[in-house]
Amino acid sequence: MVEFRSPTTVEGLAQAELDHVLAIMKAALEAVDPTEAIRRHITRDGASLRVNSHTYNLNAYENIYVVGGGKAGAAMAQTIENILQDHLARGVAVVKHGYTAPTRKIAIHEGGHPLPDPAGLAGTRRIADLLKDTTERDLVIALISGGGSALMVMPVEGIQLHNLQALTGQLLASGATINEINAVRKHLSGVKGGQLARMAAPAEVLTLILSDVVGSPLDVIASGPTAPDASTYQTAWDVLNRYNLWAKVPSSIRQHLDAGRQGEIDETPKPGDPIFDQVTNVIISDNAIAAQAAAEQAQALGYHTLLLSTYVEGEAREVAQVFAGIAKEIAHYGRPAPRPACVIAGGETTVTLQGTGKGGRNMELALAAGIAIEGLDNALIASLATDGTDGPTDAAGGVVTDSTVARARAEDLDPRDYLHRSDSYHFFDQLGDLIITGPTNTNVNDLIFVFVFE
Amino acid sequence: MVEFRSPTTVEGLAQAELDHVLAIMKAALEAVDPTEAIRRHITRDGASLRVNSHTYNLNAYENIYVVGGGKAGAAMAQTIENILQDHLARGVAVVKHGYTAPTRKIAIHEGGHPLPDPAGLAGTRRIADLLKDTTERDLVIALISGGGSALMVMPVEGIQLHNLQALTGQLLASGATINEINAVRKHLSGVKGGQLARMAAPAEVLTLILSDVVGSPLDVIASGPTAPDASTYQTAWDVLNRYNLWAKVPSSIRQHLDAGRQGEIDETPKPGDPIFDQVTNVIISDNAIAAQAAAEQAQALGYHTLLLSTYVEGEAREVAQVFAGIAKEIAHYGRPAPRPACVIAGGETTVTLQGTGKGGRNMELALAAGIAIEGLDNALIASLATDGTDGPTDAAGGVVTDSTVARARAEDLDPRDYLHRSDSYHFFDQLGDLIITGPTNTNVNDLIFVFVFE
Repeated sequence: MVEFRSPTTVEGLAQAELDHVLAIMKAALEAVDPTEAIRRHITRDGASLRVNSHTYNLNAYENIYVVGGGKAGAAMAQTIENILQDHLARGVAVVKHGYTAPTRKIAIHEGGHPLPDPAGLAGTRRIADLLKDTTERDLVIALISGGGSALMVMPVEGIQLHNLQALTGQLLASGATINEINAVRKHLSGVKGGQLARMAAPAEVLTLILSDVVGSPLDVIASGPTAPDASTYQTAWDVLNRYNLWAKVPSSIRQHLDAGRQGEIDETPKPGDPIFDQVTNVIISDNAIAAQAAAEQAQALGYHTLLLSTYVEGEAREVAQVFAGIAKEIAHYGRPAPRPACVIAGGETTVTLQGTGKGGRNMELALAAGIAIEGLDNALIASLATDGTDGPTDAAGGVVTDSTVARARAEDLDPRDYLHRSDSYHFFDQLGDLIITGPTNTNVNDLIFVFVFE
Repeated sequence: MVEFRSPTTVEGLAQAELDHVLAIMKAALEAVDPTEAIRRHITRDGASLRVNSHTYNLNAYENIYVVGGGKAGAAMAQTIENILQDHLARGVAVVKHGYTAPTRKIAIHEGGHPLPDPAGLAGTRRIADLLKDTTERDLVIALISGGGSALMVMPVEGIQLHNLQALTGQLLASGATINEINAVRKHLSGVKGGQLARMAAPAEVLTLILSDVVGSPLDVIASGPTAPDASTYQTAWDVLNRYNLWAKVPSSIRQHLDAGRQGEIDETPKPGDPIFDQVTNVIISDNAIAAQAAAEQAQALGYHTLLLSTYVEGEAREVAQVFAGIAKEIAHYGRPAPRPACVIAGGETTVTLQGTGKGGRNMELALAAGIAIEGLDNALIASLATDGTDGPTDAAGGVVTDSTVARARAEDLDPRDYLHRSDSYHFFDQLGDLIITGPTNTNVNDLIFVFVFE
């Protein structure tokens, strides 16, 4: 259960209103807790396993295996073990170093994240071994969560892990888009881009996905191990051309991609590949599920509630201007929702560092919003990292009201100066307005809340 | 009447849908046309002049004068002349050089904008002369529109126009906020900050305002000539302190502000000053009125319509991400409005120039949005400068659909490159997707439209 250690009070804000804000955030976080998310989507009654509207007859399978990777892998493994009980044969999951938990039949391997390491490679190889002899009478349940791309790592033969790491770094620095980077990585991996599904074939595959990617594209989350891959070896080749990276690429990588585009190596499985007839991908937790839970709680508490978007991106301090603009519209015109209003949005903003301060995208968004809503009547804006960790800090975000910056100035804190130095953490810390939850065991990006109270 | 000379067609977009988009924009622009705006808010029946819910008996006044300043001053003067007819005694309005029009009783003075000039000063002095002998039996109708701050210019005695101009430049470069800059300017002027109302006293004052400021704050539009001023000489003094500008300020300005804060000169009239008991400020045209007219037209055309905010600010390319995020939410989840959906917002974004290209904040917003909505199903985003002039160009904005960037690439235009070089005008020009209206005779900032069609 998530507990909000801070804020306990916000000066100038009625306690009942703060309680509402925190209850709404809590509802969002609980809906996407790994255990809770599995239990909301999967119920078992005897040998019937109900996953959303589909029912699996557990007795129909010879073996049921669990594989997977991601930061939430241990909690997901525990939960699915408890649900499957004796029906589970065995399993392997790769989790981040230190993110393990006791399990009975699913072996938990710890591996490197965000940088892949040999331990992750060893764990991924055990998954490959497990899936080697599956038959069409087996069911493979794959547990995918954020970090899975680094944790489930298996370079194609002849390519070293450190070469992959170096190339990823160069791609990131080149200005390539995430789709371009993924096209390259999928074609140098034995597990990404639908290749875990190919390993599991001819078994049936049920993939349970905790999405940490805005919009939850199946081919992007954890590099889409059980999703069709629309990119090709030629795509990957063109990306390295486009960004002039050949000089930095080892010949083993060049040879592999070239052989691939000549048709000498199997492509990743494409959309329409019959492999996917046996695969069901289910998003059990993402930003939209969290935002929806928040909206339901807000509505239950009597707020006129609008779920605006779960695809919000952009520079945090600029995105803040739009949400401040919505608060102003509500305050002045009672639209798009009348008081008491709660507008909820989700996504993930970015921060271009402007100083050497300490902060995160959520705290920075809140600080910029606070400057913009100064003096507005009874407004509050909060921004929350659902993993409990906003930037390199122990806080999940920040809360501002219309009186926050006046209060700050009275304590000789200049809000614009803190924003200018990207030092939002220390701004909120001194005011007692940090949001602190501790680790939440989940990550569905960020949530932004605009409240205009009565 | 506004005519859209471009776009006439948008490739990949049904003509009926483009017609809807343009009809909605047109409804917005017509609602804020100066003549139309006056006629919507003011009707005359015999000697009764109805202004919103208030009725003025024209026979009750000994003299009715019209004064004013701003870029829309000539059209406003013509319209009010036509309404008042013989009840009008005389008037003076200061407009931008080249923005004049034939009038009968209201003398039109042309003056400098954005930089004030001696011609504007001469016109403003004529306003002061006209108001010198007003009595409590007179009515003064003030016509205020964008640019009024530069056009109605009257430095206090002993301070030269060029000193004011230099100081304004230094304040703008110092990082001072617009409120801080205005506090200084109001205390060096004989007309700003409620001082036009003081000149008109003891006459009754009716001010008709075309707002070009986001949120329409009465004390900011044209520097609030008939609105209470909450700032003081001390505020102005503190601003020059805060930004270390004394070394650059002529001693005449320093002496004036110092005398003011010592109480040796009258303050600008403050909130609660009885002068304002005789003053009625009426916003007859602003972004909210335009956005509301657009929303009504969209609704009439069958769109599920949401007026989100008329207070949108922030960096154009980042604000674009939020609106693209709303388009995605509609396309994927049918919220905050189901298809066919139209989300309308207003405000004014900013552009931090990144290259030497040609563009404006609306075209840049549209270009960035186009990149973000690539491939989305049946979506369109448009951004429109209501004065018909986006940046230093002959276009009012741009239109993008989900297929715009693919179409651009097919013509060897790299959308990211155009964005990177701040060259949005040439991007849209080559695609034929510029919005071109010519001058609209009004300015209520910008409008942003998100459409997701069936």
